[in-house]
Amino acid sequence: MQTTHILVIGGSASGIVAAKTAKAFHPNKDVLLVRREPEALTPCGIPYIFGTLEGSEQDLISNAAVTANGVRMLIGEVVELDPEQRFCRLASGEEIGFEKLVLALGSTPKLPKAIAGCGLGNVFTISKDKVFLDEMCNRLAEISRVAIVGGGFIGVEVADELHKAGKQVTLLERLPHILELAFDIELTVKAEELLAQRGVSVRTSTRVEALIGEGRVSGVKLHGGETLETEAVIVAVGYQPTTGLAEKAGLELNRLGFIKVNEYMMTENRNIFAVGDCAEKKSFVTREPINVMLASTACAEARIAALNLYRLSAVKTFGGTIAIYSTALGDVAFGVAGERESYARERGFDIVTGTFAGVDKHPAQMPGVQPQLVKLIVARESGVIIGGQVMGGASTGELTNLIGFIIQNRMTINSILTAQIGTHPLLTAPPTAYPLIKAAEAIALASRSGD
Amino acid sequence: MQTTHILVIGGSASGIVAAKTAKAFHPNKDVLLVRREPEALTPCGIPYIFGTLEGSEQDLISNAAVTANGVRMLIGEVVELDPEQRFCRLASGEEIGFEKLVLALGSTPKLPKAIAGCGLGNVFTISKDKVFLDEMCNRLAEISRVAIVGGGFIGVEVADELHKAGKQVTLLERLPHILELAFDIELTVKAEELLAQRGVSVRTSTRVEALIGEGRVSGVKLHGGETLETEAVIVAVGYQPTTGLAEKAGLELNRLGFIKVNEYMMTENRNIFAVGDCAEKKSFVTREPINVMLASTACAEARIAALNLYRLSAVKTFGGTIAIYSTALGDVAFGVAGERESYARERGFDIVTGTFAGVDKHPAQMPGVQPQLVKLIVARESGVIIGGQVMGGASTGELTNLIGFIIQNRMTINSILTAQIGTHPLLTAPPTAYPLIKAAEAIALASRSGD
Repeated sequence: MQTTHILVIGGSASGIVAAKTAKAFHPNKDVLLVRREPEALTPCGIPYIFGTLEGSEQDLISNAAVTANGVRMLIGEVVELDPEQRFCRLASGEEIGFEKLVLALGSTPKLPKAIAGCGLGNVFTISKDKVFLDEMCNRLAEISRVAIVGGGFIGVEVADELHKAGKQVTLLERLPHILELAFDIELTVKAEELLAQRGVSVRTSTRVEALIGEGRVSGVKLHGGETLETEAVIVAVGYQPTTGLAEKAGLELNRLGFIKVNEYMMTENRNIFAVGDCAEKKSFVTREPINVMLASTACAEARIAALNLYRLSAVKTFGGTIAIYSTALGDVAFGVAGERESYARERGFDIVTGTFAGVDKHPAQMPGVQPQLVKLIVARESGVIIGGQVMGGASTGELTNLIGFIIQNRMTINSILTAQIGTHPLLTAPPTAYPLIKAAEAIALASRSGD
Repeated sequence: MQTTHILVIGGSASGIVAAKTAKAFHPNKDVLLVRREPEALTPCGIPYIFGTLEGSEQDLISNAAVTANGVRMLIGEVVELDPEQRFCRLASGEEIGFEKLVLALGSTPKLPKAIAGCGLGNVFTISKDKVFLDEMCNRLAEISRVAIVGGGFIGVEVADELHKAGKQVTLLERLPHILELAFDIELTVKAEELLAQRGVSVRTSTRVEALIGEGRVSGVKLHGGETLETEAVIVAVGYQPTTGLAEKAGLELNRLGFIKVNEYMMTENRNIFAVGDCAEKKSFVTREPINVMLASTACAEARIAALNLYRLSAVKTFGGTIAIYSTALGDVAFGVAGERESYARERGFDIVTGTFAGVDKHPAQMPGVQPQLVKLIVARESGVIIGGQVMGGASTGELTNLIGFIIQNRMTINSILTAQIGTHPLLTAPPTAYPLIKAAEAIALASRSGD
């Protein structure tokens, strides 16, 4: 039986970061990453292999980068884990002993049981497997009409990309708006309009009953009786954590099916950690288990696990998930951090919101200037900011990250009102009307006592 | 004598923000803004009227925007202030009584006494006065060769803009590098190379001894004897606070010549506040008086003064200046927040720095991807981040603001290592190699104890 000090199972974003960070901070330990797939893709880049990029080759994470600082890598499938004896067994029969184990098992696309016909040809999900995706790209190259089931981030991005690639795309969303689980209504409406303007046929409040066809899919049967003709269907209705190995080994799962971990990303077995899509997430704000799966969150968890493998550090812990994400449709980007207004109200928070619509460069006559909207969501009693949303140009991603840091630091409206920012004509909103601060001002004004 | 409740003297960025915020939070008070100039310009937009914009008209802050929420405005010059009797006198002889006064007197360009010939024709400074700037634009329209004295932000931006407008531009900097008082050497070198590549002749370590010419400037005499022929000279060697009115009224100035204020932006007279370029600044980190003048800082100070006019609030104070600024040369932007490495060392801080060079989109094959470099400066003992610098694309301004918030929250390297960010292929660096976090990791690795 070969042995290693630190074994990482899974080699997408979080597995790679766990292994590389572990090796960097524990240079004398042997670190072995075991991965089923010979090659790994940048997960958030996958929608872009259908249009902007020339294919999956341009989205590869090179194996050389993974092993650059001394991490060893082995391609193989782990089929069994013994947490007490600390070894695992590969499909090949080979056994690997370890001191510490990081499970970075990832997630797999959900297939809705309620929809018949998902087994037909030319029905795809967006998996993270290069072989599968390459085959999918080949098949899509031959056809011109695609229906996408599910208007979340992945559905929306793939729809826009396939449209860019010249396809006739219909996006089908069960809820009244696309991206409705990500943004508050006012932003979803704008994203929806934009996507439609760009040429995607967007159909919301539309329930898919079945996929039909003989051998290959040829139509989507909608609730109400209408049938939409199509040559391919992409089902993008979310992902489920991959936990078979952990479950079989007796590790506890939470009620949403994720591997339970504490704030050191440690399972109940102190030698086993779990990170990324397979690991339990709790909301930073509501403290409830949630099923957000983001590569960026996964990487943060991976770093924390790697830093706590041999010595727990009370200052290197994961305080709960602040879901932070952004996307773009052409030049217009959307970002969100923390809780949405609708979700916070549903969960019983007493909140105040403030929104300001300005511009992302200044003066407004600058070439390339774009509208920039910031919305903040604040707990009324404390003034603590629990969420924010942004619509704007190329700076939207980092402005959303700034709101993420605001939430992480539990900053209040007063601290935003008095905050210092830097501004520049070509790069930001004006200092006199910086939307983040003006949104905070709107909340302060709404809450102020009279003179 | 007419009276008002809240009088604001000065109507550039900080005066406008002070007046508008005061009116918003004290709707029952009369707010009067007195300004000498009939029209005000967005200060940071001024360099761009020489190239990117079509002239100063496109950089106007409309008077309608100033008075939109009920602020009154009066064009006139205040020549005398009686702090005890609480009134001031205009050049016209008119007197205005007030309850509370905000001085937003601004700054004026410095003219170096050591350089002879600054009084010649076609020698300009970059003032904030529209009439002066329009005249300057007219004169520059007729000539093709311009020399700029001073390679700070204004000098660099104006040089790049005049070059865009088709001029032959020479930038003269006394120090070994341009922007040397803003960035650490490694970034100044890149900015310098870039500016030269773009076609500006950059001459560093070059001291100007005199401007020469008959009536109009025709040459710049350099230390060492060389004379540079030119048709116009722009002197951009900094600004000095405008404090004559305050000084005459007996308000105390600090040793750098700024009006002394406390953290409520209040002068020693509890009815008089000062904000913006005329008001004292202390570094958030070093606690020493500094002479940074930024519209964004000015606006933060203005908000704080306005919020504290009638009732001091212990949670709405100004904790010291975190100089945050950014600029761009074409598609490449530079940003800085807080202390530089060189300055921190000079001031006796025991620091560690970490730098990471990555990309601003991902995968690196994305169209429009640009290098992104982040440098962090950390106090060794505490791990507290005291400064950061960024070089990158369009997201540089907001990423620099994020570093500003990190400094403001006194976040440590550990809190960055465990921080959550959001990433997106079109908008940010990859989650596995987000330069801000990788720079923190480099510092943690440099400081770690062995296993």
